[in-house]
Amino acid sequence: MIDRRGTLFVVSAPSGAGKTTLCHEIRLRLLDLAYSVSVTTRAPRPGEVDGKDFRFVTESEFRAMLDRGEFAEWAVVHGNLYGTRADALETALGEGRDVLLDIDTQGAAQLRTRYPEAVLVFIVAPSMAELEQRLRERRSDAEREIARRLDRARHEVVMWRQYDYLIVNRDLKEAAEQLEAIIQAERCRTTRLELRFPDLEV
Amino acid sequence: MIDRRGTLFVVSAPSGAGKTTLCHEIRLRLLDLAYSVSVTTRAPRPGEVDGKDFRFVTESEFRAMLDRGEFAEWAVVHGNLYGTRADALETALGEGRDVLLDIDTQGAAQLRTRYPEAVLVFIVAPSMAELEQRLRERRSDAEREIARRLDRARHEVVMWRQYDYLIVNRDLKEAAEQLEAIIQAERCRTTRLELRFPDLEV
Repeated sequence: MIDRRGTLFVVSAPSGAGKTTLCHEIRLRLLDLAYSVSVTTRAPRPGEVDGKDFRFVTESEFRAMLDRGEFAEWAVVHGNLYGTRADALETALGEGRDVLLDIDTQGAAQLRTRYPEAVLVFIVAPSMAELEQRLRERRSDAEREIARRLDRARHEVVMWRQYDYLIVNRDLKEAAEQLEAIIQAERCRTTRLELRFPDLEV
Repeated sequence: MIDRRGTLFVVSAPSGAGKTTLCHEIRLRLLDLAYSVSVTTRAPRPGEVDGKDFRFVTESEFRAMLDRGEFAEWAVVHGNLYGTRADALETALGEGRDVLLDIDTQGAAQLRTRYPEAVLVFIVAPSMAELEQRLRERRSDAEREIARRLDRARHEVVMWRQYDYLIVNRDLKEAAEQLEAIIQAERCRTTRLELRFPDLEV
């Protein structure tokens, strides 16, 4: 009875806000959600799988894809290149599947322009002190890298107003429930629905 | 950390769509939700309690309240008068409480004008055939009343586009989950939030 094109959900956050864990959790809860694997030039972290967590490419491969106009958005983050392939995204949306994208604030702004109907969700840690503690607990980063991420977080956090929704990530379960609610609610938005009553002549 | 004024949630539906049962269910799920008891001139149905389901008044009492400007919205539905008291509504919203209002399409349109930031949710039965069956199962209405409600439903159902969200009520549990998701999601809307990071100098 209801026809719909898929909706694009874009999740951004300063590093340490828990975005990756949250996106993983929401994919377990909403199995019909398509997830777009980003292309990146950054080195895999321990445990990351090529083609699952990211598609890992060289900088020249990335530049070639960029030249061919293959990205719906791309950005430089901490000196590495990240991008989302336009073709896979367009296919999923056209099939009526909702797509979750986990990208930085620069990429989110590009997608807002390209897909004005996209839903943008911003995740923050409860405070900068909490964010700093989480970055330290991660241990994978050197002190200089932590300082760089914190500095970037201070600049990024003010961007929350450019997003549709804000989730303060105090607790993974609570934050995942909020993200799930946002996705479920947007699926009921009248602007996204075409309703037909088959036995009603209007 | 987050300050907010309460949000007004307005739920409307053609009769038989299951709105009253759904609003009852959501009040059990979200205990912090304030519920505004409508004032009406219609006679109580069996089991309805004055001051809980409705505030039942005479037509002259209603007209006096209307003359004193006490209603945030009011409407004539099936020959009876219904209204929402502005003072109780304003107090709850000012205290930061979210308020659920179960009112007809005329009242919803008035509230949209008075509270542009209100969230309007429209509930429909899966089809007109299903709606007719539900009205017949209710048994409290005479045949002529059923015909009148169906005719009104045919006119009202097209108004769904004036609402923010649409819930197709196939199943009470599913519909209640959707309504709950809408309320939870709206609580994360950046336009409704004032965020402060106490230890961040922006």
